[in-house]
Amino acid sequence: MNHMQLVSKLTAVLGSNQRVLHKENELYAYECDGYVAQRGRPRAVVFPETTEEVAAIVQLLHREKVPFLPRGAGTGLSGGATALNNEVVISLVRMNQLLHVDYDNMRAVVQPGFINLQLTKQIAKENAYYAPDPSSQSACTIGGNLAENAGGSHCLKYGVTTNHIVAAKVVLPTGEIAELGATYGDALGYDLLGLLIGSEGTLGIATEITVRILRKPQAVKTIMAWFDRVDEASDTVSQVIGAGIIPAAMEMMDQLAMQAVDKSNYHVGYPADIEAALLIEVDGLVEAVAAETDQIVDICKQHQVRAVRVAETDAQRALWWSSRKMAFGAMGRISPNYLVQDGVIPRTKLTEVLARIREISVSSGLRIANVFHAGDGNLHPLICYDASIPFETEKAMMVGSDILKVCVDVGGSITGEHGVGIEKINDMHYLFTEAELKAQIAVRAVFNPEDLCNSGKLIPKPGRCAEVKRASTMISQHLETYIKTSHGSNSHSM
Amino acid sequence: MNHMQLVSKLTAVLGSNQRVLHKENELYAYECDGYVAQRGRPRAVVFPETTEEVAAIVQLLHREKVPFLPRGAGTGLSGGATALNNEVVISLVRMNQLLHVDYDNMRAVVQPGFINLQLTKQIAKENAYYAPDPSSQSACTIGGNLAENAGGSHCLKYGVTTNHIVAAKVVLPTGEIAELGATYGDALGYDLLGLLIGSEGTLGIATEITVRILRKPQAVKTIMAWFDRVDEASDTVSQVIGAGIIPAAMEMMDQLAMQAVDKSNYHVGYPADIEAALLIEVDGLVEAVAAETDQIVDICKQHQVRAVRVAETDAQRALWWSSRKMAFGAMGRISPNYLVQDGVIPRTKLTEVLARIREISVSSGLRIANVFHAGDGNLHPLICYDASIPFETEKAMMVGSDILKVCVDVGGSITGEHGVGIEKINDMHYLFTEAELKAQIAVRAVFNPEDLCNSGKLIPKPGRCAEVKRASTMISQHLETYIKTSHGSNSHSM
Repeated sequence: MNHMQLVSKLTAVLGSNQRVLHKENELYAYECDGYVAQRGRPRAVVFPETTEEVAAIVQLLHREKVPFLPRGAGTGLSGGATALNNEVVISLVRMNQLLHVDYDNMRAVVQPGFINLQLTKQIAKENAYYAPDPSSQSACTIGGNLAENAGGSHCLKYGVTTNHIVAAKVVLPTGEIAELGATYGDALGYDLLGLLIGSEGTLGIATEITVRILRKPQAVKTIMAWFDRVDEASDTVSQVIGAGIIPAAMEMMDQLAMQAVDKSNYHVGYPADIEAALLIEVDGLVEAVAAETDQIVDICKQHQVRAVRVAETDAQRALWWSSRKMAFGAMGRISPNYLVQDGVIPRTKLTEVLARIREISVSSGLRIANVFHAGDGNLHPLICYDASIPFETEKAMMVGSDILKVCVDVGGSITGEHGVGIEKINDMHYLFTEAELKAQIAVRAVFNPEDLCNSGKLIPKPGRCAEVKRASTMISQHLETYIKTSHGSNSHSM
Repeated sequence: MNHMQLVSKLTAVLGSNQRVLHKENELYAYECDGYVAQRGRPRAVVFPETTEEVAAIVQLLHREKVPFLPRGAGTGLSGGATALNNEVVISLVRMNQLLHVDYDNMRAVVQPGFINLQLTKQIAKENAYYAPDPSSQSACTIGGNLAENAGGSHCLKYGVTTNHIVAAKVVLPTGEIAELGATYGDALGYDLLGLLIGSEGTLGIATEITVRILRKPQAVKTIMAWFDRVDEASDTVSQVIGAGIIPAAMEMMDQLAMQAVDKSNYHVGYPADIEAALLIEVDGLVEAVAAETDQIVDICKQHQVRAVRVAETDAQRALWWSSRKMAFGAMGRISPNYLVQDGVIPRTKLTEVLARIREISVSSGLRIANVFHAGDGNLHPLICYDASIPFETEKAMMVGSDILKVCVDVGGSITGEHGVGIEKINDMHYLFTEAELKAQIAVRAVFNPEDLCNSGKLIPKPGRCAEVKRASTMISQHLETYIKTSHGSNSHSM
């Protein structure tokens, strides 16, 4: 089927040509998501408004063997929504309704394009909220959160997205509609909903999502603590958890990250010479929150904290949180480009891993800021580079990869919450045995037998192992030469 | 391969004939698990002690196309460990070691035959515990808990087994070994560990299980409240949750259940005329627990509670809990036989569903006690019957099935925590569409392509739908006649 035939069939399904983009100039904005290192032009972008329309489109594309992929707000950080194979992009932004709220049983039903933060805002009048809060929550959609199993600062206490989605209506890659999970209680049979969550758009398209909502805690206290030395901050984190306290959130920023946000609109006034700041939040009943706050302040003092404060106003609390949540964007103030990595380590290895990241920074000549969910050991190293310098983008990617190796070496993992997507698909070969990858591939084939739905993401194709290793050896040989020659000239920027 | 050839090959793998049972008199104890309505004689029972032995046995059985299934303590309530196809039963009771505890990161690694309660006991010295606490926790194994995604009284606050297992080494039904999940952080790729948990031994055999352990809460308070009317108890449950409190546990027993336990060794002294008792536990920091206890007592008083008490001693708390946890067994004091059902309903439908269960009891002439996890709407109706009366077992099963239909009608589900196994496999046809069942079957085939591993459990075979419906229509016609003729003679026993 030629391009215009396809466009006219898609238009026929949607009943309006305003819901089908297919001209080159219209498609530019859909060439990548928040992972900008790789781009791909979609064949078309369609905007369905109902489950039935999604199903009809998928049936058409499945019948015609045209590759496709779903897209939410495009805030993903690993390229999950990038059209590598000239896909038809099924944008879910018009399916943006809050369909139903059951306050008695604390459930809400949303369409996939409904924005994360909007849910919390719309149910606030009943003193309820939705817990998972990725930093992009003011823009990202709950459908995208489902696909990526999104985390967030408050997932330390409340768990990531998979703990909050209880059921979903799904259009499978064949165009069939299935209902997975159970609104109340556990679902029967295999946990296919759990399989869908975090499958990065490769197993189907959720068109109705039922989530757990929570009552707002009676009280919240937010603590900011500044440390001369990063290891004192790390030890504080371990001791708080060791004391049996599970804060709602426990975030850490290092010196370079603080410098960056202090140059942005979220000026907290971090002293230039502290190595680390902790942002800790506790919530619950008034009495418990007061007691936990005292305990945390005590623990900070046992670790030579330079200053520790409890937010006195909502405005102060909001400023502190903005300074953390906008840290990624603030990197633009100190570096022309940056690459955000996402690794996980055992909490007890924080000090060691941060020291090794410093070594990598020194030896590569690239500055690295660290912003992370310290409570659950989820690091976000922000690698500063200048894309206008030849090979520096590749070098930044190599540095990112080296940091992930450090994470794996200490018993951690190569992604905490940003997903695999395109970015880390080749790393899968290093982490899984053949039996394990075979199972992953076979599970994908169950739902996505023709591999039309978001092909080339998350799970590598069989037999690519040797090829990938060869390619990556070539790149690293190139870079080794480059790093050797360029090292001297870059190291002053530390 | 004939029987003795197989036995000698199994013995060769395990290096000792003491680890292979194969004589008829040795196999009797392995004919069923806690679901006694159906039995099946295994071909042999083997007792491996290592992952490698399990893998070698499975490879042998896979090669020879001999059906097999894993078994823990045999406390399951839906027949998951019953040898329907003359299977070789792979008993995991000798793999009963606690392999490693990492208190800094709060992880423990156990073998599958390690007993649930033993974990909490062995880590108590470090002030830690393992949260999921099925009533059978003094006997059931963590491997069995994984297979069934076991719940428990304290799962209201802490979540069921799937929230506590982070990684597992698994022997797949082909004999290959895979590591699923991640000790720290989220695993990459599809959530195959989540798929394994609750798969009732159909996707593989976990041989090493890494679980999250928790610090013991600083304080615990246990509240017992007696209500003249069951709807006042139900409304209390809803209002406690509605107030934003999540108790560690919130259990309810009705009149008949209280009568039964008061006749057992766990005599609490429930007044004969109260309709419902609530057992509520809160845990956390001292101050929070005190505040929540006061709030809960207040809410009880707003609902005409007859008496409400807070346990004053550990002995009193232990007695109250025993009276709840031993309620199933205590049914033997008031009925020659009983059948335990396991349904889930929205919490707000408690009063309505209990009224409908009473109607079913009256119309069937069978007494029904109710013991349940009220906080999450997980009912356990205990249907009393006398197996020596012709057709009464079938009638009890029909009554159980009717109760489950009520649960589904109000938006609930047919199992909360006891699994599907043999017991509810035919109900799957009523709950899933063809597309959904097809996906379940295909996922099973990925791991279990020859269907040798625990065949006939959890996921029905394709095409059995019509057959099942025909059979169940025949039984119900039989029973209808029976109920009509016998109803008068039984109704006095109410």
